[in-house]
Amino acid sequence: MSCCDQPRLQPVEQALETLLNSAKAIVETEMVPVTQALGRVLAKDQLSTVDVPPADNSAMDGFAFNATDSTANQQTTLPISQRIPAGIAPQPLQPGTAARIFTGAEVPIGADTVVMQENCEWADDKVTVLLAPKAGDNVRPQGQDIKSGSVIMSHGHRIKPQDMGLLASVGIAEIPVYRKLKVAILSTGDELIEPGTELQPGQIYNSNRYTLTGQMDALGFETIDLGIVSDNFDATEQALRKAAKEADCIVTSGGVSVGEEDYVKACVEKLGGIDLWKLAIKPGKPLAFGNVLGTPFLGLPGNPAAVFVTCAIVARPYLLKTQGANDILPTPIQVTANFDRPKPAKRQEYLRAKLTLNENGEACAELAGNQSSGVLSTASVGNGFAIHPLGGTIKTGEPILFLLFSDLLF
Amino acid sequence: MSCCDQPRLQPVEQALETLLNSAKAIVETEMVPVTQALGRVLAKDQLSTVDVPPADNSAMDGFAFNATDSTANQQTTLPISQRIPAGIAPQPLQPGTAARIFTGAEVPIGADTVVMQENCEWADDKVTVLLAPKAGDNVRPQGQDIKSGSVIMSHGHRIKPQDMGLLASVGIAEIPVYRKLKVAILSTGDELIEPGTELQPGQIYNSNRYTLTGQMDALGFETIDLGIVSDNFDATEQALRKAAKEADCIVTSGGVSVGEEDYVKACVEKLGGIDLWKLAIKPGKPLAFGNVLGTPFLGLPGNPAAVFVTCAIVARPYLLKTQGANDILPTPIQVTANFDRPKPAKRQEYLRAKLTLNENGEACAELAGNQSSGVLSTASVGNGFAIHPLGGTIKTGEPILFLLFSDLLF
Repeated sequence: MSCCDQPRLQPVEQALETLLNSAKAIVETEMVPVTQALGRVLAKDQLSTVDVPPADNSAMDGFAFNATDSTANQQTTLPISQRIPAGIAPQPLQPGTAARIFTGAEVPIGADTVVMQENCEWADDKVTVLLAPKAGDNVRPQGQDIKSGSVIMSHGHRIKPQDMGLLASVGIAEIPVYRKLKVAILSTGDELIEPGTELQPGQIYNSNRYTLTGQMDALGFETIDLGIVSDNFDATEQALRKAAKEADCIVTSGGVSVGEEDYVKACVEKLGGIDLWKLAIKPGKPLAFGNVLGTPFLGLPGNPAAVFVTCAIVARPYLLKTQGANDILPTPIQVTANFDRPKPAKRQEYLRAKLTLNENGEACAELAGNQSSGVLSTASVGNGFAIHPLGGTIKTGEPILFLLFSDLLF
Repeated sequence: MSCCDQPRLQPVEQALETLLNSAKAIVETEMVPVTQALGRVLAKDQLSTVDVPPADNSAMDGFAFNATDSTANQQTTLPISQRIPAGIAPQPLQPGTAARIFTGAEVPIGADTVVMQENCEWADDKVTVLLAPKAGDNVRPQGQDIKSGSVIMSHGHRIKPQDMGLLASVGIAEIPVYRKLKVAILSTGDELIEPGTELQPGQIYNSNRYTLTGQMDALGFETIDLGIVSDNFDATEQALRKAAKEADCIVTSGGVSVGEEDYVKACVEKLGGIDLWKLAIKPGKPLAFGNVLGTPFLGLPGNPAAVFVTCAIVARPYLLKTQGANDILPTPIQVTANFDRPKPAKRQEYLRAKLTLNENGEACAELAGNQSSGVLSTASVGNGFAIHPLGGTIKTGEPILFLLFSDLLF
């Protein structure tokens, strides 16, 4: 026996492209109240049926008047002809008068300017404008934010808090979203036991199930947790059949290398099809992509840090696209390296790192510690990935790309 | 009447310091399963009771042997004396032999090195090492990630997916966390109506309630939603009393300026105490901080974008500290401005902006559009805040600080 054929490692970007090209978004939708829409994916463009603001309104507590009634660089005294609190429909402004007005209140027809009260002296019946504003000042024009009939949010948008506010601001109380993606996760390996039980010789605690559950939860997916599957063909086949039936996607950790003890590959081959990739990613490398009875299958490596990285970098965009989202890639930022890696990377490395501002106000990345694929503690201590690019080197003081973990957790 | 006293504007950092110094963390805790701990705040340091890995184990599928039994630069053939799948306690290695071993399996006593199978030729009973690794290669040493007795996660840590994996990896199945912070939110203004109903003259839809609900939800808090309170003293007092009784903190939007129509200030003064601040923040400026019957009170401005900004920049760290968290501030990053703001900022501006990588791989910030405090749509389109610092200017091509929205939503 021999297995010295080293297939060419596939760059991460290329693998991602293949994955994303094959991703099919789910189609089922449901209506949810805007208050419960955080993280959900919009299933239809949302149009405004109103102008925002619906009429010219005041940006200040003060007095509304017509700019032609005041004189620049001179004090002007005007009679107060009405009082307009917010929420009241005003009367047209009598020419040559001012209206007492409050923040958010509608500016009356005939007025075009609001002077803030800090620049006035007033009594019950008249106001003296001490410092005249420019015509149009302190008035928020009708439709300034949104014009009636315009698209305010597109199909595929993932709902953030400000989106909830924006939808509400045009009167939308519920929205159509894709139902939550169902992701089956399962771990393989007879050496794994669940936390909360006592460790026997040869055993290790299953951590991948927990990392993956957290990642699915953060992305707003529904996890179908199939637990640990023993290293034998029948148990593996049974678990995969169940996963294919109940889930939109299957994500496994471990069991897809070329080892004799890997039953996942054989099972997936039997029930559908599988491609084994060697990715130019570190930690990571072995990645399987296929289907089980037609349900997409993603086989992540078994090492704790490799699972974390490949889920965040490779599985996340694929799953988000399957969920129907269109903003699926994180925003890389350029930072200054505070460490050296003089050897060109044979695989693109996602280094667990800590980003901080140095005394010059520059964002600097330091390594968070041990980068072994078995070590998860540095992912807990760090706040993002410093990227050591394929074939490139890293030198202190030079720019590198960085991905904040928080940008991968939504 | 006159109100021309313009108090000095307070820098954001100074206001934050005052707020954070007065924040008292809640004390009640509860146990939650690690699988449900995402976003929760750890109430007690977590110590490992095991080494991770618990024993030396193999990083590869291959053969374990003692480095003294192979010769550098020469092929070595060794008899295979045992087979060690993952999860099995191995026998001590017979001197002068190799053990067939798989990824994750325990390295037997007497072996110190694993050669990956890609560098071997083997039959049932013997293996030829074609390319000898260095002594110790492909072995993950016992305790490499975590030593028994060490603190793996500190009190105050907010649980991310990788933390769930890390806790599980040392056998911890449930953890003590602070109970969820209860935040009462209420909006004031007779002009406000809820989305889903038809707009009458003078009215606008309430959006702040929705933005704030989303922000509280993203931070893992429990929202006590008191809806819209009418502009009168009794209704305001009743709502504030209810909020003080049920919540840990009260967050309001609108109603805390010096206007005659603002009843919130008078009510909070009657029921506790209130300080009105003028912050050097834009959008924003008026901010109230006090207490209602002993419950902390934060009065945010009423404009939609001002609510979004002051909640993300000022309220978020305060509330996270009250929740017991210790990682409460976002990570500012340095990016290149792709716009000009030649006038020194009188207030620190949080510009809704879009960060993208340009053709040179530099992270560049563009303005997302209209920066008026009434305009929320640009917060939906953008992906973060470009900071125009107090007293500073912005010039295309020069560095500025940026906060990703995703870093403010966890």
